[in-house]
Amino acid sequence: MTYCVGLKLDRGLVFAADTRTNAGLDNVATFKKLHIWENAGDRVIALMSAGNLATTQAVISLLSEQIARGGDGETNLMNVDTMFQAARLVGKAVRDVARMDNDGSGANAENFSVTFILGGQIKGEKPRLFQIYSAGNFIEVSDDTPYLQIGEHKYGKPILDRVTQPDMRLGEAAKMIMLSFDSTLRSNLSVGMPIDLLLYNTDTFSADRQVRIEQDDPYFQKLSKAWSDGLRDAFSSIEELEV
Amino acid sequence: MTYCVGLKLDRGLVFAADTRTNAGLDNVATFKKLHIWENAGDRVIALMSAGNLATTQAVISLLSEQIARGGDGETNLMNVDTMFQAARLVGKAVRDVARMDNDGSGANAENFSVTFILGGQIKGEKPRLFQIYSAGNFIEVSDDTPYLQIGEHKYGKPILDRVTQPDMRLGEAAKMIMLSFDSTLRSNLSVGMPIDLLLYNTDTFSADRQVRIEQDDPYFQKLSKAWSDGLRDAFSSIEELEV
Repeated sequence: MTYCVGLKLDRGLVFAADTRTNAGLDNVATFKKLHIWENAGDRVIALMSAGNLATTQAVISLLSEQIARGGDGETNLMNVDTMFQAARLVGKAVRDVARMDNDGSGANAENFSVTFILGGQIKGEKPRLFQIYSAGNFIEVSDDTPYLQIGEHKYGKPILDRVTQPDMRLGEAAKMIMLSFDSTLRSNLSVGMPIDLLLYNTDTFSADRQVRIEQDDPYFQKLSKAWSDGLRDAFSSIEELEV
Repeated sequence: MTYCVGLKLDRGLVFAADTRTNAGLDNVATFKKLHIWENAGDRVIALMSAGNLATTQAVISLLSEQIARGGDGETNLMNVDTMFQAARLVGKAVRDVARMDNDGSGANAENFSVTFILGGQIKGEKPRLFQIYSAGNFIEVSDDTPYLQIGEHKYGKPILDRVTQPDMRLGEAAKMIMLSFDSTLRSNLSVGMPIDLLLYNTDTFSADRQVRIEQDDPYFQKLSKAWSDGLRDAFSSIEELEV
């Protein structure tokens, strides 16, 4: 499992991804799920992945090789003009990998399904945020629902529903997302720290606000405790049900 | 889907169940999922159900018919000596229904799986609380994890994890469970009001603390708003993440 959140606000985008992968409870590893491509001053593109690790890694590798080849007229994430075109490129990579892995050999009975959150800003556009499915098609967030979650989304959803405001500061949004992770980490063993985080401020075309939150991060520990205390206080202040 | 919670505390038991059933998003109905058998002064037994409605109704009917026949030496929920025996009776009824419905005719490709929460007190014992599976086997709650959830359990779990204390008053626990329902109702359309609630105080052998919380219940609406406000206050009081 996995937990990733992408959020589109008035001031920019926030991306957060856990790093735990597992093939069974007894086979756990740490892999980066937040991938960032940056051409300072021109574009920042972030891609977060959930699902079969072989598939998601192959997709990232295809996209990276396209960029490395560059210059031969082939489109890639670094030369497309819009985030919509970027989403189509990722969708195509997902379909290409699916085609390779389902070659009719019947070698696999595994579930190869994957989901991605893609977001960023390319010069000439506003920041945009997409969710891309196993079929290679995708949706874009709207003002009504400005966040996307992939992986184990349920435990951490109530806080996002209640607190998200389009005019939040990015640091405030990052705090909210950390609380959403805190609830998820407590309840699903297949979601694990460290958490990778990217705050992207609109029109900066720079990915320098990145951080990795480790297990023993003092801010995260303080946040977790303060939230538990705050919930308990909020709880005490409400009157009891009389039956 | 369904959402039911059972809680065992020092002072007694709390049961809460939603009432929505559905066969697809366009086929929604209201059915009671909290069933109570009472012999005042001797026993109170409550059973909550999730899963295939045909199966859960058949189980309840089998158990009720056993009681109605009574007196012929057959064991039933009203004459067993312990809650463990009651759990075995329910488990047997689950297996009997499964056997009837899987007669080899191949008439069904449906998922007949069900889950129950059974709890109560029989004179001579302390209150006990069980979860019964489709296979008819069951587990009993421990002091370490004093609550059980069936159905859509994820959205409402963080509040239970953070707030449950064995020495809570039952009204306090009911308030917590209503908050757990509030989070679930917001996120899963297949969980719906009204909510049926039973508070059972140890050694009263009486089921008189029952209530049905309707959609427009003023307490529930006030609770929901106070909780949203409380969460937002708790959120604001925590410092932001600096990246």
